[in-house]
Amino acid sequence: MPVAVPIASHTTVPLKPKSSAPRSNPPHPLSTLQPDELRVAARVVKEYNSTKECLFRRILLIEPPKKEVVPYLEAELAGKALPKPPIRRAQALFYFAGETEFMEATVDMTNARLLGQRHLEGEHGPGDDEEVLKIAEISLESPMVKKELERLQLPEGSEVIAEPWPYGSDETETPTRLSQVWFFLNYKENKDHPSANFYAHPLDFSCVVEISKMEVIRIDRLPTDTNMTSESPDARYVPNKDCEYAPDLIEGGVRKDLKPLHIVQPEGVSFTIADDGETINWQKWSFKCCFDVREGMILRNVCYDGRPVFYRMALSEMTVPYGDPRAPLHRKSAFDLGECGAGQTANNLQLGCDCLGVIAYLDGMSCSHDGEPVKIPNAICIHEQDAGLGSKHTNIRTGRADVTRTRELVFQLIVTVGNYEYALYWIFDTAAAIHYEIRATGIMSVTPADASADVSTLGYGNLVAKGVFAPHHQHIFNLRIDPAMDDYRSNAVTYEDTTAMPRDPQTNPHGVGFVAKSTQVQQESAFNLDWTTNRFVKMVNPNKRNRFTNKPIGYKVVAPPTQLGLADPTSMHYIRGEFTDHHIHVTKYADDELWGSGEHLWQSRGGKGGCRTWASRGRELEGDSVLWFTLGFTHITRPEDWPVMPSEVFRMHFKPVGFFDQNPALDVPPSIQSINKSQYAFPNGNSSPPAPATNGVNGHAKTNGSTNGSCCGK
Amino acid sequence: MPVAVPIASHTTVPLKPKSSAPRSNPPHPLSTLQPDELRVAARVVKEYNSTKECLFRRILLIEPPKKEVVPYLEAELAGKALPKPPIRRAQALFYFAGETEFMEATVDMTNARLLGQRHLEGEHGPGDDEEVLKIAEISLESPMVKKELERLQLPEGSEVIAEPWPYGSDETETPTRLSQVWFFLNYKENKDHPSANFYAHPLDFSCVVEISKMEVIRIDRLPTDTNMTSESPDARYVPNKDCEYAPDLIEGGVRKDLKPLHIVQPEGVSFTIADDGETINWQKWSFKCCFDVREGMILRNVCYDGRPVFYRMALSEMTVPYGDPRAPLHRKSAFDLGECGAGQTANNLQLGCDCLGVIAYLDGMSCSHDGEPVKIPNAICIHEQDAGLGSKHTNIRTGRADVTRTRELVFQLIVTVGNYEYALYWIFDTAAAIHYEIRATGIMSVTPADASADVSTLGYGNLVAKGVFAPHHQHIFNLRIDPAMDDYRSNAVTYEDTTAMPRDPQTNPHGVGFVAKSTQVQQESAFNLDWTTNRFVKMVNPNKRNRFTNKPIGYKVVAPPTQLGLADPTSMHYIRGEFTDHHIHVTKYADDELWGSGEHLWQSRGGKGGCRTWASRGRELEGDSVLWFTLGFTHITRPEDWPVMPSEVFRMHFKPVGFFDQNPALDVPPSIQSINKSQYAFPNGNSSPPAPATNGVNGHAKTNGSTNGSCCGK
Repeated sequence: MPVAVPIASHTTVPLKPKSSAPRSNPPHPLSTLQPDELRVAARVVKEYNSTKECLFRRILLIEPPKKEVVPYLEAELAGKALPKPPIRRAQALFYFAGETEFMEATVDMTNARLLGQRHLEGEHGPGDDEEVLKIAEISLESPMVKKELERLQLPEGSEVIAEPWPYGSDETETPTRLSQVWFFLNYKENKDHPSANFYAHPLDFSCVVEISKMEVIRIDRLPTDTNMTSESPDARYVPNKDCEYAPDLIEGGVRKDLKPLHIVQPEGVSFTIADDGETINWQKWSFKCCFDVREGMILRNVCYDGRPVFYRMALSEMTVPYGDPRAPLHRKSAFDLGECGAGQTANNLQLGCDCLGVIAYLDGMSCSHDGEPVKIPNAICIHEQDAGLGSKHTNIRTGRADVTRTRELVFQLIVTVGNYEYALYWIFDTAAAIHYEIRATGIMSVTPADASADVSTLGYGNLVAKGVFAPHHQHIFNLRIDPAMDDYRSNAVTYEDTTAMPRDPQTNPHGVGFVAKSTQVQQESAFNLDWTTNRFVKMVNPNKRNRFTNKPIGYKVVAPPTQLGLADPTSMHYIRGEFTDHHIHVTKYADDELWGSGEHLWQSRGGKGGCRTWASRGRELEGDSVLWFTLGFTHITRPEDWPVMPSEVFRMHFKPVGFFDQNPALDVPPSIQSINKSQYAFPNGNSSPPAPATNGVNGHAKTNGSTNGSCCGK
Repeated sequence: MPVAVPIASHTTVPLKPKSSAPRSNPPHPLSTLQPDELRVAARVVKEYNSTKECLFRRILLIEPPKKEVVPYLEAELAGKALPKPPIRRAQALFYFAGETEFMEATVDMTNARLLGQRHLEGEHGPGDDEEVLKIAEISLESPMVKKELERLQLPEGSEVIAEPWPYGSDETETPTRLSQVWFFLNYKENKDHPSANFYAHPLDFSCVVEISKMEVIRIDRLPTDTNMTSESPDARYVPNKDCEYAPDLIEGGVRKDLKPLHIVQPEGVSFTIADDGETINWQKWSFKCCFDVREGMILRNVCYDGRPVFYRMALSEMTVPYGDPRAPLHRKSAFDLGECGAGQTANNLQLGCDCLGVIAYLDGMSCSHDGEPVKIPNAICIHEQDAGLGSKHTNIRTGRADVTRTRELVFQLIVTVGNYEYALYWIFDTAAAIHYEIRATGIMSVTPADASADVSTLGYGNLVAKGVFAPHHQHIFNLRIDPAMDDYRSNAVTYEDTTAMPRDPQTNPHGVGFVAKSTQVQQESAFNLDWTTNRFVKMVNPNKRNRFTNKPIGYKVVAPPTQLGLADPTSMHYIRGEFTDHHIHVTKYADDELWGSGEHLWQSRGGKGGCRTWASRGRELEGDSVLWFTLGFTHITRPEDWPVMPSEVFRMHFKPVGFFDQNPALDVPPSIQSINKSQYAFPNGNSSPPAPATNGVNGHAKTNGSTNGSCCGK
């Protein structure tokens, strides 16, 4: 994915605290970085470096040490007097104007003092809107690029689009900060349309920009046939068909027969958002949903019915390695959190477009080059949704049926990283389960293909339109889960395997027996799921047992085993992708180990930490384990994914296992017509067509009163 | 699962054709068995056997041979004159009153003549409501059972419930038709409540009934501790706590803070049901959703935009083997389609209880002992649902976002098989995908456990309440998929594996390459999924290639590899469960091979066919393959599943792969506020609590008109 330039979705007016959401002072130890705090951090760094101009890339909250936070949370839960909260700290990442060293400063915001500052030797800062715009601009002005464009003899009236990406990494050392830039043609007729799909016209070269000098240092021609490199020095541009996704550009227009569907809550929503703007209460759940520039959404102190369940949950990193081995495409490997930031690239979500039903929004906050808070409006939307049948049983002797439905509370954040979109969801339900959902959509990254070449013989991609080759790729995600199973101070990770009992005259005389066996992970390590044993991983409290099962209470992760990283272990994709080679890594808790592939990913070359490195230490876990869960999908490209891709949906689950003594959804109210107000589609349930739109609410008048919740005796 | 006795949900009044749904005459070759046809079949069989009384168990449609149907469907699609439809045939399964032979007759309903009749040597008929009621009744009257009940010294004022199950099978030959009956106590206070949960009080014995004589022939004591058999000849009943699921019996009552959520379609629904009551048209999809006594729902002739996609899709069988090796529990292994029937046990779905939104219903039809059609009202409910973000892309240069949502059309059928419920769903979407969803809920099958015994050491189950032991079990489902990829006459099955390219200086110099490789299945065979290669199975048309990829057009099955059957290959669970040992079986099409474990499952002992047997023939597929797909879940029982189980949800997908030349959802209308009419949860999106219910529609007045779909420029 390229570095995003979310100009339009952001505003750079200084952000003031919402008058409607006064922040407590001092802030809660786990509350998001706040505008005034960000200003303090920036001021402290500027004052310390008064002789230079600081260009801030990110100012991030440094969470207080867990051991200092836990007593505070325990007092909160117990309703006792709160201890003095730990000091609030921030990390400022910045460059000095005109210099190349990537700097880090640590600030005590509570006391407005600098705790330290250092040059991050050999590291590069994350992408940045202004930087990316500048790269695109100078690329198009470069004589080297202009020469290529002349060669192509592009059709008049078209516009060239430059799309800067992180350079990626390969075997070759690249000490200076680089960007690789792809080029597309915004073709003729539709080029002035705000959704013109220039990706349908990929050009056959890229350039490399040395960012410190803002100078194009190299042209890389793209392979366009079945050869490993381009071999046509004077190739011309061959126009290919536009392929648009904007509804007003669709040939034949859009469907006319999809009737509106509305979700309404006449009595309002069931959730509340506290004055801090991030503490949510819903259906016995209580937690903070915190915006974060890097991680997007961080769930903190997730409790159910007054019992802690998770200390922290967040997407820790994602990588998108491409399977096309041809240079320079081999360097396509994005790390969208570390290089761009899931919060930095968050969309400004619109009521009725991105969200259906009754919606609340949370704003996010980034920072400008000069250290001012920048508002990211409507970064997270919150709503309830019906999730279908929750439970049902019919007593066949009496005919009485009892039915409940599952309700979910959804937190949605959608990121745009250039051509691609990810919709990320934390979802809570009325049965005490948590779900993490990912939807991949947007536009695939493509390269040009000669009409003359039979690229269908290339196993690493597909032609998705004439002249447009979409390489296969993987999306590999890693979640960092810090459990707190009814206790902030004691947890462990176990995995459970279910296997057949050997046939045995005494213990298994008929050969039908099978047993589930739990194994506690004692040392930092990594392992995989296994469908043959129905293996799942659990986070448990070894010191609390379920009164019935007599087994440690906990939550299990329910997710299928998905394909892991395919890149060769000697490759930079693998070396950098520290979470891509196992489904599960378990590490001993550390305050500063938050991201599966380490901290600074731009042109990273590995060796700076990540869950593979940490898990390989093999230390005793000593009752404070962190679970790193990897899931992903290998995207074998289809024409059906072009030009815009129908969402590919993944959902994983966190479900209680003995955490409760009975079904926690037992007290969910029955699903009955007097509440649900469903309607018959047709006057008598038969095949008559629905009434015309002009006729108004079809079925309403016909069925109101004529039905009742008799199934539940209500 | 026990045989169901869905008294209350069924009516035995003779069914007349809906005046509103006149059937064509002659009926469509693929239309469901119709009431008048059923009567003809019964009459023909009665007349042929005029000297005896026929007690019908099932009268089922025998689909016409595919080779006779295809020309008819092709003419239909082409809008040409329709050929004379093939004759309509039925299979009548029955017993003669007072006799034990299980009889089968084949009837030509078109010409009202018998085509054949035979005694099904060594087979037994499916369960039957009247039979099960009788078994329960005579069990309770049996002196052997009464003796056991006296031994237990049950508390006064309680009621004993007898729950007949199929006998299951083990090594011991059982030529006569048997049932095993479990007993529960409907305990004191709540026993007169229509949802009293008697399963919370399992008794420590079962009995075996010889059905032909309707006589109890044996008592089997249940093991109640860690021993393999019961060893306490004079054990007494030890009362344990009631554990109720009915909302009006929940301690503390139900939650008060879950606000109503309504789904409304002011312009009506987007689907139509033809006069035949089973042909559905929606969003370019066209197909028959046919009710079937055995399979529940059968999708026939599924077409998209006038192109055939599937000839037939249905759940073919499911089995629920239990992992408890202790006699007589080792015989717990249900085959709910073959022994009971997913249609036979279908619930009478209620508006606003089982279905939320704007709903249409289809009735089902069964037959009475004397061969009269019996209506199964509201067996299938149909509705649209929003499925969230369908696609999105933001052009970061212009800020213009284009968003669509996915709409789904859902067909729901819920079966009750004694203690357990399955909700079964066929789901179509606006991106040309089909989904199959299963929700498992209801009440787990449990056995008693002595308070004194530490059953937590038993690996094959968990104590879910005091005295209540829930053995682990598997739910293994098999779908039979008969593809018709843009052609009824030519299909094949392939599987695709994605693997790393070896690192090589010429072809993969940086070690990042990976390739997808398709392999066509040439002979009947069975194989498994493999996450390490991201293996998925495709149904393709080898004679039609996608114009861009140059690969055969088709649909892929998207489903994770789930654990297969754990029972020992020498065990009867395995032998009968012909679909339980591989994810995928591929067989050459045959009109009479429809069910994964064969036809008659009651006390089946294998050897009568099923997908394992058929796949093992290894014949050339010759362009007409049938795909048998197995998925399942191993249910490691939790207290959270008791007393009623929160739905366990599985969804698998059928997605186009090169079947289209571009995203088939491109023309889905944009998601915009002027259509979606979403609302703000709170006056200004902040943390104010929602208005009280009395205040009416919260947010409505405040936000109407104040928002627009600007995200899509509309």
